[in-house]
This record gives sequence, structure tokens and C-alpha cells, in this order.
Amino acid sequence: MYRTHTNGQLRAEHIGQEVTLAGWVQKTRNKGFMVWVDLRDRYGITQLIFDAQRTQKDMMQQAQNLGREFVIQISGTVIERESKNPNIPTGDIEILVSKVTILNASLTPPFTIEDTTDGGEDLRMKYRYLDIRRNPVRENLIFRHKVSMAVRNYLSGQGFVDVETPYLIKSTPEGARDFVVPSRMNQGQFYALPQSPQTFKQLLMVGGLDKYFQIVKCFRDEDLRADRQPEFTQIDCEMAFVEQEDILNTFEGLTRHLLKEINGVSIGAFPRMQYDDAMRLYGNDKPDIRFAMEFGELNQVTKHKEFNVFNTAELVVGIAVPGANSYTRKEIDKLIDWVRRPQVGALGMVYCRCNEDGSFKSSVDKFYDQEDLAKWAETTGAKPGDLICVLSGQTNKVRAQLSALRMELAERLGLRKPDEFAPLWVVDFPLLELDEETGNYHAMHHPFTSPKPGQMELLETSPGEVKANAYDLVLNGNEIGGGSIRIHDKQTQATMLKHLGFSEQEAKAQFGFLMDAFEYGAPPHGGIAFGLDRLVAILGGQETIRDFIAFPKNNSGRDVMIDAPAPLDGTQLTELHLKLDIQE
Amino acid sequence: MYRTHTNGQLRAEHIGQEVTLAGWVQKTRNKGFMVWVDLRDRYGITQLIFDAQRTQKDMMQQAQNLGREFVIQISGTVIERESKNPNIPTGDIEILVSKVTILNASLTPPFTIEDTTDGGEDLRMKYRYLDIRRNPVRENLIFRHKVSMAVRNYLSGQGFVDVETPYLIKSTPEGARDFVVPSRMNQGQFYALPQSPQTFKQLLMVGGLDKYFQIVKCFRDEDLRADRQPEFTQIDCEMAFVEQEDILNTFEGLTRHLLKEINGVSIGAFPRMQYDDAMRLYGNDKPDIRFAMEFGELNQVTKHKEFNVFNTAELVVGIAVPGANSYTRKEIDKLIDWVRRPQVGALGMVYCRCNEDGSFKSSVDKFYDQEDLAKWAETTGAKPGDLICVLSGQTNKVRAQLSALRMELAERLGLRKPDEFAPLWVVDFPLLELDEETGNYHAMHHPFTSPKPGQMELLETSPGEVKANAYDLVLNGNEIGGGSIRIHDKQTQATMLKHLGFSEQEAKAQFGFLMDAFEYGAPPHGGIAFGLDRLVAILGGQETIRDFIAFPKNNSGRDVMIDAPAPLDGTQLTELHLKLDIQE
Repeated sequence: MYRTHTNGQLRAEHIGQEVTLAGWVQKTRNKGFMVWVDLRDRYGITQLIFDAQRTQKDMMQQAQNLGREFVIQISGTVIERESKNPNIPTGDIEILVSKVTILNASLTPPFTIEDTTDGGEDLRMKYRYLDIRRNPVRENLIFRHKVSMAVRNYLSGQGFVDVETPYLIKSTPEGARDFVVPSRMNQGQFYALPQSPQTFKQLLMVGGLDKYFQIVKCFRDEDLRADRQPEFTQIDCEMAFVEQEDILNTFEGLTRHLLKEINGVSIGAFPRMQYDDAMRLYGNDKPDIRFAMEFGELNQVTKHKEFNVFNTAELVVGIAVPGANSYTRKEIDKLIDWVRRPQVGALGMVYCRCNEDGSFKSSVDKFYDQEDLAKWAETTGAKPGDLICVLSGQTNKVRAQLSALRMELAERLGLRKPDEFAPLWVVDFPLLELDEETGNYHAMHHPFTSPKPGQMELLETSPGEVKANAYDLVLNGNEIGGGSIRIHDKQTQATMLKHLGFSEQEAKAQFGFLMDAFEYGAPPHGGIAFGLDRLVAILGGQETIRDFIAFPKNNSGRDVMIDAPAPLDGTQLTELHLKLDIQE
Repeated sequence: MYRTHTNGQLRAEHIGQEVTLAGWVQKTRNKGFMVWVDLRDRYGITQLIFDAQRTQKDMMQQAQNLGREFVIQISGTVIERESKNPNIPTGDIEILVSKVTILNASLTPPFTIEDTTDGGEDLRMKYRYLDIRRNPVRENLIFRHKVSMAVRNYLSGQGFVDVETPYLIKSTPEGARDFVVPSRMNQGQFYALPQSPQTFKQLLMVGGLDKYFQIVKCFRDEDLRADRQPEFTQIDCEMAFVEQEDILNTFEGLTRHLLKEINGVSIGAFPRMQYDDAMRLYGNDKPDIRFAMEFGELNQVTKHKEFNVFNTAELVVGIAVPGANSYTRKEIDKLIDWVRRPQVGALGMVYCRCNEDGSFKSSVDKFYDQEDLAKWAETTGAKPGDLICVLSGQTNKVRAQLSALRMELAERLGLRKPDEFAPLWVVDFPLLELDEETGNYHAMHHPFTSPKPGQMELLETSPGEVKANAYDLVLNGNEIGGGSIRIHDKQTQATMLKHLGFSEQEAKAQFGFLMDAFEYGAPPHGGIAFGLDRLVAILGGQETIRDFIAFPKNNSGRDVMIDAPAPLDGTQLTELHLKLDIQE
């Protein structure tokens, strides 16, 4: 037994007790005749005192030599603290130490183990085990644990069964790239790591399990964008005998439960928005609706004037930025520079100041009079004091650009409040998405998503217009979950795969087992998957998922702490029937 | 909404209600003027009735044509059943159907969806989604879910934090073979899938997390023995500032909780046994102590006679088989054949009948008189009516052989009762194990296990005698968990790796990050891991783990349902900088 109490446990009521504690030396203050040590563990900090009058000389010296992050065990008496510290729960007491054992020494850590550290990202990742000692990181991990437990207990209480699906499955070249695993026992063959347990959860529904969930790691070998991880965690769910409405209600229930249980926030019915409306009003299928700044489409009120940029644009669209008429010319120029950055990609930005006196002053006054501009204000909902920002061009591009600007301005204006939660269902997603490079359509959600009733026919004539039984749950401008009602009959699935460019043979090789299963009494079913990493980050009031992952990888997919991936032994390769094929 | 109720829900109190149900056609009974259909879902079976007097003609025909495993939705009125079925909860009622919708047809399933099916193992695995519809399989999966939830909630309640450790880690050739994952972004380099999160959980302790657990998939690329899976699930746990006693108490608490919560069985303090005693008394480090049949070592009482087989044997050891004096000569001969099978490998078996009158009759009466045999009886604890079975030879081999015989006889005698639970801690394992082929020692548990205090020195002189702070939890003759107190200082870890044959360079390359971590204030720590697959099977009163895994692989590591592993696209290989190296 290394300790009788943790370092977060002792209170005034323990005064007089003999205790044994263990932990890390957070800091020492040495006044020569007095040494104080802050002893830290996961549970808190307890102050130790060594006092030349009451402490033996060699122990005094030992105390003076304790370095930061030494691991020690002490015994002593709980005494009342002279100057109490109301900021920590143990602040009323300290321990008059009678015995010290150094359990392990420590080199000086490469960065300070404090809430705000001097260590940069790279250093913190290399020494992640030290980073985890810092309160914010440890609290994030414990927070994640609480969310996971709440998810599991809620779903289990609703009759969902946690079923473990396999990690060694089959590669399906469709979609993102798979990580693959060579098989030693099956020469020349490979497993793949799941991008999601999609087909397995559908098979569980065919198997009559009715309600399934799993918190499960998934893998995607993508070129990593910022804040993407090659392995990530999903709350994966599926239900049989359901329509979209059942799924939405069930998982609205889960999300509401989490917001209540984890954040203490009560939220009523979640609003729902059609995909087309989300794109039209926010330029984005995951709008942050904690604030308004809805898009106003201005084509009607800008055309037939001499301003050719707008006349020739597929879309002219603006937002009213609240109170931003106060921006100086220089600030507005900077904003224009911002939208012209390659990451955003706008060619320019037209703006219109809405003066307090009701007059307007735009950057295109040559073409538009006060009456015209009043219509802009009306369309964008601008009020006196606002600034209207207008972008124009090809619809998809300009929507993305204005959406980026809207989010940036909201951030600057402090409208993205981390403790405010605005969930939103986005529904009626298109079934297919045009790949602009190849001109081919591919599944927007995945090939198992069912089209809306009666829309199969449109697949032949206007594939881009077919709507799917697909939905996303959006929270504070982030997609936290997405799912669909699935296809559950072989014929529809075969037609869908054909439209996605699979030959009959490819379809059979990759998804034959699923289509076979559909022939043996597959029930109607559907589901959803939540991105746990992101969900946890957002519930935690943050947006960087890496801060909520114990051992994340960097942007090159490397774990810099253990230095993985790494070259293999030659014999390992031989056993796997593989040779390297390195291009210099 | 596909249903107002499930098929397990309706009772007499619902009589008169209009309901909508959905599910699978379990069976139909067609009397021409009456058709009964058993409608099944996860929750139960409800009887539907179609009655020529009350049902429209075309619906009558529809009912007659419903095939097994068709998925249907029906509406109708709950009515009282004429001949009630007390064997099912819905047996008081039936549904007079007013509307039938076929949601999906079904081909005739390749085996019957009944508790006892006509499908063989291979067929059931190929159509696992149909197998899962059978009650025993579904119940096993739900049972597993309950065990997992109970584990998580218990440990969480004890302050353990569920932390997800990475799946894409680094290969360590030590121990079993790793499954590896080629990295596309890091040419020529590979990740490995974890054989266990061992080093990560230790780093979490270095990181001050204090108590960690995770239910996690682990991977081992071994040649599969019966009932081994290439991917398996562990309840992985670690604690800081603990001694062996703390770990034993904590996880005895978990196991006791599971036995109570899942099986309704209350068990007192778990007995503890030293490894050496387990080997001596049961020939096995995971003895089934639901029954006695302890080994009696007979060297002392058999030597100095003319029987050279015993005189030259390193070990002569016997067990008393209760009541087996009733075995005929033929039965005993069969037993001798059994121990001589290559899987057991004994050269022969000596036996001694203990007659009810107190006399003995042995197969070696030529060498041993009644007084000698009385000593055999005394040493093995044999009573009148028992049969003493004696094996002899090289200690390790003969212990394994007699242990196999003991288990076989217990099975035949019905002593291995599935609803009786006898947990046991086996402690003081050897640190090292001699590889008889190579003559080298390797870590019995793993290279991070600490030796017992003061035994480091023995490493140089008698490595085989060093005992470790290592322990196994045994339940009903199965190892359900194992763990150790870890090394937590760099020097000891380096010495250990040296003794295990690692060069300094290899040690640094593979475990440098861990040894570095030990230099920054690593606390004393230790842990345990339970094999969840086996634990669940045993709690479920069974021993085949495959029956508790949703989608198991076969003995060649194949998933025969999805047909994985499978060859890759050539382009996938190229992207991974790999070429096949197939030996014909």
C-alpha cells in the first residue's frame, strides 16, 4: 500500500491523522529553515512541510534536494495550514512530514508541467506521457471517458447491444483508401482495417439484432488535413424496422442526454433543415446556427446594371455583418485580402456600409444607387451599423467562400461561444455527388444509402437531383454525426452499384456477401455514426480533436513518441511474402 | 414507424388493442381455413392468426404463401388465444391480422433458424447473419454486451479511466508475431497492430493517470490453435502506486462483482496458490479447482523396488479418480490408450484399484505389495472405490500428461459443472521460461514484468529460479486474466532486456521511448489484462469463445462470410511501395 489517501482528499477534518501519500513533486519552496513541497497526483495537490525545528537534519536536506517531477512517498501528520489556500480543495491543511522515500528520480522535464506550458506541440507530442500530467490534457481524457460512458449507458438503456465487429476485414477500393494488413497464412492476400463497420452493422440487422451500437476505432489512409487522424473513433449505431424519423428521434435523445449529463444544458427539439436550404442560407451543409448572418442572394437586385462582374456571375450573395460598419477602410481592405487568400479563393469582395442614418456607402456606388443598396440590405437583413459583404461567381465556389468569411467574422465577433450549443439536423442530402474532375457521380454518403421513395427513376435522367434518406447531425458548425436509411433489397443495391460504376463482377467480389444477405429476409434498417473525437472536443468547448486523444499522430501520420511507423525486419517481410518496391 | 410493439411484448392486458408488428416468419401452420404464423424478432415470438371466416380471401392466400424468414409487417387486433402456450411470454394472446405487408421475401435459408440447427460450423459461419438470428447465438452476443457493460461500469465506479490507445503502433519482433500495416505516406515503413496496449498503459501511468482500463482489440499473427482468434478482446487495466496485493484485491473485486451481477453467484475471498504448488498439485498453472484429484508424487514410495520404469523416472505421480474402481478392465485399457494418444503423449499408465474391502490390485503387483500400494493410496488421497492412475517420466512432460488425464476424467465424471465457479489466483510465477529448443530464456509474462525484490542477482546465476511479481486469475481451469507489477526504472529495464538477449541498440530502437519515460519520474505501477472472449464464454457456462464472437475467423484466419483476406488491387500495392514475393 503506497498511500492511505490521494493528494486531493485531505481536509480540515483529517487534522491530527497520520497519513501516507505518494505523487510527483510539483514544486519546492526552500526558505532554508522551512521547505514546502507541492505533491501532485491525478486527484490534486497537497502541501508538504519540512521544518528545521521539527524535522531531522538529513531529511531537511533530502527535502531541499527534491527535484521537479521526482516521485516520492511520504508519511506525516495532517496539520492546519497557517496561510490557507482557498483555491485548492486541500488548501486548509498541510502535512508535517516524518518520512520521505524517493520512489523514482526525474530528469528535468523538457517543458513545464503546468496548465500553461512552455512546450511546443512537437515537444509535447514526443513526451506525451509528460504532457498528460498537465491538468488540461488529463482533464480532457477524463472528460472523454465520461462522454463514452454516458453514451454507452444511454444506448444500452435504450436496448442497444454493444457488438464488437472485426478489425481484420476486406479491402474495398471504393471511397477513401484502406489501410491493409498482409496475411502471412494466406499468401499474397491482405486484410483491410475498417473505414467503418458499415457492412457488419447492416449484417447484424439482417441477423435480427434490432439495435446495435459500438464505440469503435476506424481507419482511413488519407492524406491528412489539419485535425484529421488516420485512426479515429466512431459511435456506430444501427436500428432495424425504422424510418428516418425514428433514427432522428432516437439520436436526438442521445445528444440531448449528453448535453444535459455532460454540460448541464437543456435543449428542446432540434431544428431540421433541408440540405438545399443549408447550402442556400449558409453555403455549407454544417451551418453554425449559434448566430444568424444568413446569406442573401442578390442576383435579382444587382442585375441589369452596368456592373458586369455581378451580371455574369452565377451567384451574387452577401451577408450582413452585425456592427461592422465601424470597420475602418484599412480593416475592410484586410478582410478583402483575407477572402483573396488561396485557402479561400475569392477574386474580390464588394461591400456596402449601412450607416446609422439609413444611408448606404458601397464599394460599387458607380453602379448602384441608394435604392438599389436598400434592396441589398433588405435581402441580407442588414440593419443600420452593419456591413454587407458580397461575393460573386460560380455557385458552389462562392458559397464556400462566403461561408468561410461568415465563420471567420463570427469568430472575430465572438459569436462562436464554446459554452453555447446549437444542434441542427440537416436532412434530404443528395444521393450522389458529381466528381468535377472525372465527371462521374459517386455516393455522397456511401453506396448503401437508400434514395427517397420514388426517386430511383431519376437516377437515369438526373442523377444529381436524386435525394437520399440521409441526414447529418450538426453541432456548432461541425458535423458530429451522419447516417442514412439503407437499401435492404438486392435489386436496388445492385442498381445503385451499377450507377456508381461498379461492374457486376466488382459488385459481387466486394459486396456479394451483403447482397446475398439481402436475399434472406433483410429488414428495413438505418443508422448513424458519430465522430467521437470531434463530439468530445465540441462538448468540451474546444475544436481541436488532438487535444482529446491520448496518443495522437501528427500530420504525416507518425507517432513521434514511439517513432512509428518504422522499417521492418527483413525476415518479417519474407514471412509476409512481400518485397519493398521503393521509388527513389 | 414500422411497429407499435415488439414480438415479445403483448400480454392478456393488451387484448382488444389494435397493434402493428414486424418481424420474421418463423413458421406457418396451414389448415386451409386457418393459418397460423409465428412472427419472430429479437424480443420474442407472437402468434398471428388468419381465419377464413374473418379474413379476406386474398389475404388468406397471402398468408398461405408466406415463406420461412420472410420479413413482414402486420396490423391486427390482439385477441385471446384459444389454446394458450405457457412456454412463451406472449402465449396468452394472438393477433387476428387485418393487414399484411411483405417487407422483404427470403430464399429458403441454408439451415434451420432454430435453437438446435441442422447447419454445420462451416455453413453457419458463411451465413453468420442467419446464424445470429438463432436464439443461442443472439443470447450469447447480448450476454457479452452485459458483461462488457458491467465491467465498464464497475471499473469506472472505482475511478478507472477508459482511455483509447492507438491501433497503429510499432512492431516489436519479441514475443508473438505482429500483424503489420504498410504506411503509404512513410515509404518502406510499417505500423504494427498491438498485441496488447502494454507500453501505452504503462506510459499512461507515467503520465499520472493513476487508474486506466480499456476493453480493446488485440492482434496476434500466430498459427492458430483451436479456439484462438487472430484478433481478440482484452479488458486491459493498469494502476499506479500499487503493490501486487492492491491489484489482486481490486480485480478480485471486479470478478466477484461480475459473478454476482451476471451469474447471481456470491463468492468469498479467492484462494491463492503459488505457481510451484499449482504445478506440483495439478501439473498445470491454471488448475480447475472445482474438484480435487490432486497429484500425489510417488517417487519416494515407489523407488528401490525392481520396477525400473519408476526408478529411473524423474517424476512418478498419480491421481485418485473417485469411484473409478468400478471401471472394467476394458475401460481402463481405453484410458491407457487415451493417455498414449500423440496429443497426450504418455508412454503408458500404471493403475491401482482400491477395493471396497481395503485391498489393492495394481497393474504392477509384481513389484509392489499391499503395503506399498497403501502408501500410494495415502499419497494420492485415494479411498476405497477409487482408481489410482500413475504416470511417470520427465517432470514437465508427465505433469502435463497427468493434468490432461485429470481434466478428461473430471469431464467424464461430470465434475466440471458449468454453473459452478471456482476462481483462483496463481501467484509467484517464474520470471523467465527456458525455451527448450534454443536453450535461451525468454520472459514468461513479458519483458516489463518485475522480479521479486532481491532476486535480480539470481538472474546471473540461476535465471530459471527468479520469481516474478506476476499473477494469473484462473476460473474453472481457464486463465481468464494475467498481469504483473512492472519494472519502473530504466536501469532494471535495461538489465532485463539484456538478459532477454536484446542488444543495447535493439533495446533502444524498440523500447527506447519507454525507458526514456522511466527517467522522468515513473511511478511504481502494475496491472492485469483479462481475455474478454474467454471470460464471457466461461461466465456463460461454455468454453468455446467462437460462440461469443459476432464474426469470428476460422482456423486459417479467414472470415468465410466476407471472404477475407483477399488479393489487393495492383495499384494499391504500388501506392504502398510493395511487391508480392510469392513462393510457389
